[in-house]
Amino acid sequence: MKEAVLEILRHHRGTFISGQELSERLGITRTAVWKHIKTLQQEGYRIEAQPRRGYCLQEVPDFLYPEELRAGLSTSCIGRNIVHYHEVGSTNTVAKQLAERGEREGTVVIAEKQTEGRGRLGRRWESPYGKGIWLSIILRPRVATDAAPSITLLAAVAVAKAIKNFCGLEALIKWPNDILVRGKKVCGILTEMKADMDVVEYVVVGIGLNANLEVQDFPEEIRDKATSLRILLNKKISRVNLVRKLFGEFESLYNLFREHGFSPIRSMWKEMNTTLGQQVQVNTLTSVYSGLAVDITEDGGLVVETKEGTKVFYGGEVSLRKHLN
Amino acid sequence: MKEAVLEILRHHRGTFISGQELSERLGITRTAVWKHIKTLQQEGYRIEAQPRRGYCLQEVPDFLYPEELRAGLSTSCIGRNIVHYHEVGSTNTVAKQLAERGEREGTVVIAEKQTEGRGRLGRRWESPYGKGIWLSIILRPRVATDAAPSITLLAAVAVAKAIKNFCGLEALIKWPNDILVRGKKVCGILTEMKADMDVVEYVVVGIGLNANLEVQDFPEEIRDKATSLRILLNKKISRVNLVRKLFGEFESLYNLFREHGFSPIRSMWKEMNTTLGQQVQVNTLTSVYSGLAVDITEDGGLVVETKEGTKVFYGGEVSLRKHLN
Repeated sequence: MKEAVLEILRHHRGTFISGQELSERLGITRTAVWKHIKTLQQEGYRIEAQPRRGYCLQEVPDFLYPEELRAGLSTSCIGRNIVHYHEVGSTNTVAKQLAERGEREGTVVIAEKQTEGRGRLGRRWESPYGKGIWLSIILRPRVATDAAPSITLLAAVAVAKAIKNFCGLEALIKWPNDILVRGKKVCGILTEMKADMDVVEYVVVGIGLNANLEVQDFPEEIRDKATSLRILLNKKISRVNLVRKLFGEFESLYNLFREHGFSPIRSMWKEMNTTLGQQVQVNTLTSVYSGLAVDITEDGGLVVETKEGTKVFYGGEVSLRKHLN
Repeated sequence: MKEAVLEILRHHRGTFISGQELSERLGITRTAVWKHIKTLQQEGYRIEAQPRRGYCLQEVPDFLYPEELRAGLSTSCIGRNIVHYHEVGSTNTVAKQLAERGEREGTVVIAEKQTEGRGRLGRRWESPYGKGIWLSIILRPRVATDAAPSITLLAAVAVAKAIKNFCGLEALIKWPNDILVRGKKVCGILTEMKADMDVVEYVVVGIGLNANLEVQDFPEEIRDKATSLRILLNKKISRVNLVRKLFGEFESLYNLFREHGFSPIRSMWKEMNTTLGQQVQVNTLTSVYSGLAVDITEDGGLVVETKEGTKVFYGGEVSLRKHLN
C-alpha cells in the first residue's frame, strides 16, 4: 500500500494531491494515508504536507529502494523481487541463504553498504554507503554443472553493455569478468553456485559496481587500479536508472542463453574483451602459468598457449603482462 | 565413556569382567558402569550380566555404529568423525547441512535407513533398514571448481577397490561412477558441491552400496539391473568391515589426489572401467548423443566420438548400447 501511495505521489510530482483524494483512490482511511506518508518521509522521501492542499513529493532519496527500481522496470524476471538493505554483511551471503530456502529465480539482494563485501579469491571488496551498486542475483538455470562458468561471462557482458549504453563509456572485459574502463577496474563479479554432478541447483551472481565513489572512497593502494563511473564521467550518475538498465541487459542475455546456449554470449564477450591476444600470467591454486591468451572455449574456459602446451583455465587470477607490477 | 566400557568388554569378549574391575579401570562408580551397560544393551549389544561374575559381551549388533567402525580403523581423516542415524531422510542432505555449518573434512554421515534416499538425476534410491551402506563423506579439497568431477571418479575407484579387495568380486565402473558386478549395479554415487568461480568450498560424496539386500528388497522393475553383494556372494557380509575397508581405500586415494592430482586416479579408473571402447548413448539435459566412448579427459570428462564430432561430457546419463532396452 505504501508503494501505491508513492506511485500516485510520483505521478503528481511537484504538485499537491489531497489526503482525501489519496484515501478515496486507495480505499484506505486518511489516517492510514498519513502513516504511509510518515514512513516514506523516514525513508528519505521529501514530501511536503500542507493543511488544505495535501501532499507533494519534492524529492526521492538516492537509495536503491525496490519501489524506485520497480517503477518503470521492463523485466519480467530479473529484479521483479528485490530485498533491500541499508547495511548488510555481504549481499552474496544473504542471496545464498535465500536460495537455500528456495527463493525464486530473478530475486535480487541489494545493499547501500556491505560491511564484509567479498571479491574473488577471498579478497575484501570496498562497499561504502550509498555510493556503489552492490547486488546479488539468484538464478536457477536448468543447465549442467559445466555450464556454470558461462553464466559468469554472461554477467560480465551484461554489466559492460549497461555501462556502455547508459554512460557511453567503452567498457572492456578482462577474463573472466572484471570490467575495465580506460584500463581501470569499475566492476567485479563473484559467482557462487551449488550443484550436483549433473545439474546446477542455484547460482548467485554478485556484482560490485563502483558507481558514485569518489577518489577518497578507495583505499590508497588500489587507486591506480580502480575507478568509478562518477570519476570517469566527472558527474554523479543515477544509480537507480543504471540498475534498471543492468536488469534489462541481464535478462535479455539470460533469455538468449536459455534459448540458444552460450554461443551468442561468447561472441559478444569476445567482442568486448581485453584479454585475448595478450600475454597473460595465470595464477591457479597450485601453479603459475605464462603465455598468450588465444580464445575462450565453448564452455567459457580461457585458452592460453604456454610453453608447456595449450592450457584451459576456468578459474584463477589472470594478470595482463603489460599491467604486471 | 560408554565407548571405553565397550572397548574393555570387547577385549574380554566371551568372558566375564566384574563391575568392580570396570569401575576401577575407568575411574567411575559401579552405578555409572551399570548405566553404560544398560545403554549398550538398548543399542543392541548382547551383554550378559551375572551377579558375582560381572559382564560378558556376547554379540555386537549389526549396525554401523561409530564405536564399531572406529575400533580398528586405520584412517586419520576419513571416518574419524561419524554421525550415525537409525533413520534419516537423506545422508547427503544432512552432510550438506553439517558442511554449511563448518563441519570438518572427513566427517561421515551414515544411516541404517534413508526415507528419501536420492540417486543421480533426482531419482529415488532404495535404502532399506540395516541392509545397505548409506553414507556421505564431507570433503574440503583445496582445488579449483573444475577439479570437482575428479573427486566423483575418485569415489568410484575407492568403492570398486573396496569391493574387489574385501569380497573378491570383479567390480567395474560405468562412467562416471556406477559400480557394476557381473553387469548389474551394486553401488551408486551422488556427489554434490558448493563452490565459487575459483575454488570448491565443500564436496559431499554420497555412497549407496547394496551390501546385504535380498532380491525382495529391490523394487521389481529394477531387479534385472541391480543386485547386492549378498546376492552375488550368496552370504551376508560384515558391513562394518566393508565400511572400514572403504574408508581406508578412500583415504589412500584422496591423499594421492592431493599430492599428485587426478592423473594416477585416472589411470586406475581407466583400468577398472567398463565404458571406454563401448558404443554409448549420453542423455544430457538438452540433447541425446550416440557414439564411441574413447577416453576420459584430465579433468574427468567422458570423451565420445559422435557423428557431430568429438564431444566431452561432465554429467548426464550414459547407457551402454549393449544394455539398451
